[in-house]
Amino acid sequence: MQLISLLTDFGLKDPYVAEVKLVLIKNCPGAVLVDITHQVERHNIVEGAFLLEMAVPFFPGRTVHLAVVDPGVGGARASVVVECRRRHVLVGPDNGLLVRAAETLGYKQAYRIESPRFLGRKVSPTFHGRDLFAIAASRIASGAHPSEAGSKMHELVDLPLRPCSISAGRLECSVVHIDVFGNIIVDARKVDLSRAGLGDKSRGKMRLKLNRGRSVTLRLVEAYHEVGKGELMILEGSQGYVEIAAREANAAEKLRVKLLDRLKITD
Amino acid sequence: MQLISLLTDFGLKDPYVAEVKLVLIKNCPGAVLVDITHQVERHNIVEGAFLLEMAVPFFPGRTVHLAVVDPGVGGARASVVVECRRRHVLVGPDNGLLVRAAETLGYKQAYRIESPRFLGRKVSPTFHGRDLFAIAASRIASGAHPSEAGSKMHELVDLPLRPCSISAGRLECSVVHIDVFGNIIVDARKVDLSRAGLGDKSRGKMRLKLNRGRSVTLRLVEAYHEVGKGELMILEGSQGYVEIAAREANAAEKLRVKLLDRLKITD
Amino acid sequence: MQLISLLTDFGLKDPYVAEVKLVLIKNCPGAVLVDITHQVERHNIVEGAFLLEMAVPFFPGRTVHLAVVDPGVGGARASVVVECRRRHVLVGPDNGLLVRAAETLGYKQAYRIESPRFLGRKVSPTFHGRDLFAIAASRIASGAHPSEAGSKMHELVDLPLRPCSISAGRLECSVVHIDVFGNIIVDARKVDLSRAGLGDKSRGKMRLKLNRGRSVTLRLVEAYHEVGKGELMILEGSQGYVEIAAREANAAEKLRVKLLDRLKITD
Repeated sequence: MQLISLLTDFGLKDPYVAEVKLVLIKNCPGAVLVDITHQVERHNIVEGAFLLEMAVPFFPGRTVHLAVVDPGVGGARASVVVECRRRHVLVGPDNGLLVRAAETLGYKQAYRIESPRFLGRKVSPTFHGRDLFAIAASRIASGAHPSEAGSKMHELVDLPLRPCSISAGRLECSVVHIDVFGNIIVDARKVDLSRAGLGDKSRGKMRLKLNRGRSVTLRLVEAYHEVGKGELMILEGSQGYVEIAAREANAAEKLRVKLLDRLKITD
Repeated sequence: MQLISLLTDFGLKDPYVAEVKLVLIKNCPGAVLVDITHQVERHNIVEGAFLLEMAVPFFPGRTVHLAVVDPGVGGARASVVVECRRRHVLVGPDNGLLVRAAETLGYKQAYRIESPRFLGRKVSPTFHGRDLFAIAASRIASGAHPSEAGSKMHELVDLPLRPCSISAGRLECSVVHIDVFGNIIVDARKVDLSRAGLGDKSRGKMRLKLNRGRSVTLRLVEAYHEVGKGELMILEGSQGYVEIAAREANAAEKLRVKLLDRLKITD
Repeated sequence: MQLISLLTDFGLKDPYVAEVKLVLIKNCPGAVLVDITHQVERHNIVEGAFLLEMAVPFFPGRTVHLAVVDPGVGGARASVVVECRRRHVLVGPDNGLLVRAAETLGYKQAYRIESPRFLGRKVSPTFHGRDLFAIAASRIASGAHPSEAGSKMHELVDLPLRPCSISAGRLECSVVHIDVFGNIIVDARKVDLSRAGLGDKSRGKMRLKLNRGRSVTLRLVEAYHEVGKGELMILEGSQGYVEIAAREANAAEKLRVKLLDRLKITD
């Protein structure tokens, strides 16, 4: 079974996702298409990169991952095919969107999309998702090797995000996603809390410093029901990242936290 | 053809639905997945229970229905598999979500999910949808009998909703869903209107009492075009429940009615 | 491979789309269902007609297109099956929704849905999408000829939209869609700009007149990156229509333009 995953910021009200899928369906009639999401925040490469990274480990080997969050469409950024371990292949713009998923899957080699076989006959300068990336993805899904796309690339463009910083009793990180429940997901893992000396559940509490001098206390837990309704907590989320949540309530609204905000967690 | 239906409050912007579907796709490669909705109001078990009940009769026998609206995830509530008539099976949390669909399909027996074969190897305490219910659903869809999940349960937890009350000239009911058009769907059927003496179309009109002493007049009709544009009406909706609508307008906004509001309909 | 496309204003929070799909799945088990969109603005026939027209050329011949934006459901409007070239067939209400797609695909003949084989056993007067159009679509997808639906129709109801008007140095048109990025799509093609003498890129700029005397300058470009971030431009969009956009910004919000607004573009 050939799987093709899709992640975009195209939303669902336009015909854009259907047009991408039709390229895949016509060129790879047997493939199973799996939507990761089409609701990445418009042009937010960082959020797209993290959502893609979270989802890819659940796909079987040989999956082709088509990802398009592409503010630079029609400009100078390269179009790439990225070969990873277990024959996972990523297809999308070289703007940082693919780097985290590539690392998680095991990066092998990136190729620039140059071959006419990997492009549509007519490429709209505003919709490479349909006329270029979907064509390239369907070539790979039909058996072409990533190296057939074009020349080898030296490296991928990096993600435009300051890495999280860890010191004794202090973890500084970024909000990379806010989920439908208002849970705040940051670019730190449980092990990063431990390295900062904040991962000991018996200690229990830590401080979360927000902007404008605000700060709140968080309890370190393993499951939502360990705190009272509406109370704040910090835990390892289901996506492998540290998550700040409020039981049966919306933590992001409570704390007025937005995507890409910088947070400081201290003892 | 093996169908698996999905109903959750996960929304579509996170990778959660994809991760659930991947469990099903990997374990039941031939199954056809049908989304009922992923936009149940966050943690609203009542709305989820009614939407599930409305949709299940349209599925053929042998369908596995995976439903997750689960504010108590990781806590004490049981995880269940419910065997119904015509080999329909419901899988989800035992918090009231499944009871109405079970009655509609014909309840036979509920089983607690206990067998290691019905669980993932590692179960995230915040995402049973993926690590427990999807595994259980894929076991059933692959041919396991519901009784293989675990021990028999005496009964299911009931829905946390005051039933509608009927007397001569008076029906009191709850708003269980507001649809995309703003139509207000209540937990009463046409027959309940008749039992209250309100179902006679020739009589024509009735009163709808809202909160804070507000009330409006409704015409009983069969189709939207029987009233003028923007006018209010009451009718049997396409889902088998009584519906309060406004022609080519949004009744819920007009009447400032919210999910779970209590309404009184009188002659 | 039999494709069936779906376009509605049903949204995704209700079980309506699932109920339509179940009719198709049960009656045409092998068909591949492709969602164009279910988020046409409620009851907006004009937007639905343009989105359908944009998407249909990407489908292969023999596709059945099921389209339902139906404010007049249960009233006097006809239900139709429209035979087009390359065996494309459109199914939906005769209210203007299908006319543009029919022209684009090559109109051959429309038939009124009358045959009991093309109707459900029980037809809800508020949900023809499920009980009538989906049944009719599944008959066609299973091999029935459009003429089996019922009697020939003389012509289809036209779209309730003033056509765009073109004169020297002046193009007046309507906003027929605003996409998820805030790009404004109008009912004029690149060739219409040229016919108005506005299509010469070397000239560069033109005026866009909005309501209440407001006006702005637009640069004619081919790709978004030709202007600075946040700047306005006019270009041929990926859907074949003229599009007014702002680079990495929301043009519709910037210009406070709404669906169906009338715009004047001058030199």
